[in-house]
Amino acid sequence: MPRGLFITIEGLDGSGKTTQIKRLAAWMQKRGLDPVITRQPGGTATGDRIRALLLDSGSTPLAPTTEMALMFADRAQAIAEVIEPALAAGRIALCDRFTDSTEAYQGGGRQLGSERVLDLHRLICGDLQPDLTLLLLPSLESSLARARNRNERTTAQTGQDENRFEQEQGEFFKRVWAKYREIARREPSRVVLIEGNLSIDEVYEQIVEAVSERLVANSPAR
Amino acid sequence: MPRGLFITIEGLDGSGKTTQIKRLAAWMQKRGLDPVITRQPGGTATGDRIRALLLDSGSTPLAPTTEMALMFADRAQAIAEVIEPALAAGRIALCDRFTDSTEAYQGGGRQLGSERVLDLHRLICGDLQPDLTLLLLPSLESSLARARNRNERTTAQTGQDENRFEQEQGEFFKRVWAKYREIARREPSRVVLIEGNLSIDEVYEQIVEAVSERLVANSPAR
Repeated sequence: MPRGLFITIEGLDGSGKTTQIKRLAAWMQKRGLDPVITRQPGGTATGDRIRALLLDSGSTPLAPTTEMALMFADRAQAIAEVIEPALAAGRIALCDRFTDSTEAYQGGGRQLGSERVLDLHRLICGDLQPDLTLLLLPSLESSLARARNRNERTTAQTGQDENRFEQEQGEFFKRVWAKYREIARREPSRVVLIEGNLSIDEVYEQIVEAVSERLVANSPAR
Repeated sequence: MPRGLFITIEGLDGSGKTTQIKRLAAWMQKRGLDPVITRQPGGTATGDRIRALLLDSGSTPLAPTTEMALMFADRAQAIAEVIEPALAAGRIALCDRFTDSTEAYQGGGRQLGSERVLDLHRLICGDLQPDLTLLLLPSLESSLARARNRNERTTAQTGQDENRFEQEQGEFFKRVWAKYREIARREPSRVVLIEGNLSIDEVYEQIVEAVSERLVANSPAR
């Protein structure tokens, strides 16, 4: 059986990843494809417990290295339980975030560096890389504005402090954004950069175009 | 302030680590030393949650790479929260298991290899290494017999299946035992190998001798 396709969707919180994954999955299903959809962190029972730890570590903040190692623990389990079995069965694995997120957030945002994250990827995940990555990257200004809005909403709804990830703004978000852009420039054959302040429909069109192209390239009939 | 001493105790389950740590801590306290005692996995609030995940991952087993990454997530947090602050304050940090355990269990037992574990150590923990490691290594035969006994007791007490770590015996334990021995031979200046089937008092004497020697060597008055 030919190996399936591994597609990841990347971007800052609020970049519209979730909406686009739903639409893309529906588009695939209409065409008789049966994608396995997952997310990181989370997506397995173990991953959900790791995700809970990442979002709320209690009274003591997580060290950046702890956070990075937990991201890879989650990833290792997702690969073993979900992604590799899907690819081996010839299916499409559609994943909301993968190592690019760790490189952007922990490598860039928390300043642990790209090399450290990429070395960890090789040690934990081996050779596995996405066949195609869709990176949703609205302008820095609108990314920051969305993060600020989400933050205020969360605080208002829960009456509590914002969770760890939403808490960090300004300089942190700028570093994450810049690292995502750097990844896209470094790996243009894997990463399709969908940038600028586009409407949901405009982003969706670009996604479908990129995915169609990859499906045709991967087709055994080609 | 002079930096404190980082001492680790290593060995298979049932090798008597816990008993010896208690006695060693009491010995130190009698001499006016105030060691910080911790263990891996666990020893921080985050570490306890990681430990719980390692001991019971629910219906799906953890991938060996997940287990390895979780061990280092726990370690990173222990270093940041407990070990480094203790050493910076000039105190002794006394830790029940450290990277040698990951090398022995995941590197040897689960056959992920020493190099992979040591590379991960460098990426997550940086340059931190124990100043002294006390490795308790009864003969393979008695280590296996103890593991088997603990297993039966656990099963009888809980009426449930044994936990992940106790479950795996035979070939797995042999590989762990051999890897511990290999580490001691590779790093004789750091690792004091206390081997053979000694009584609790005999082991304790060797521990006190090794620790005294290191404390004298580390003394500013020397």
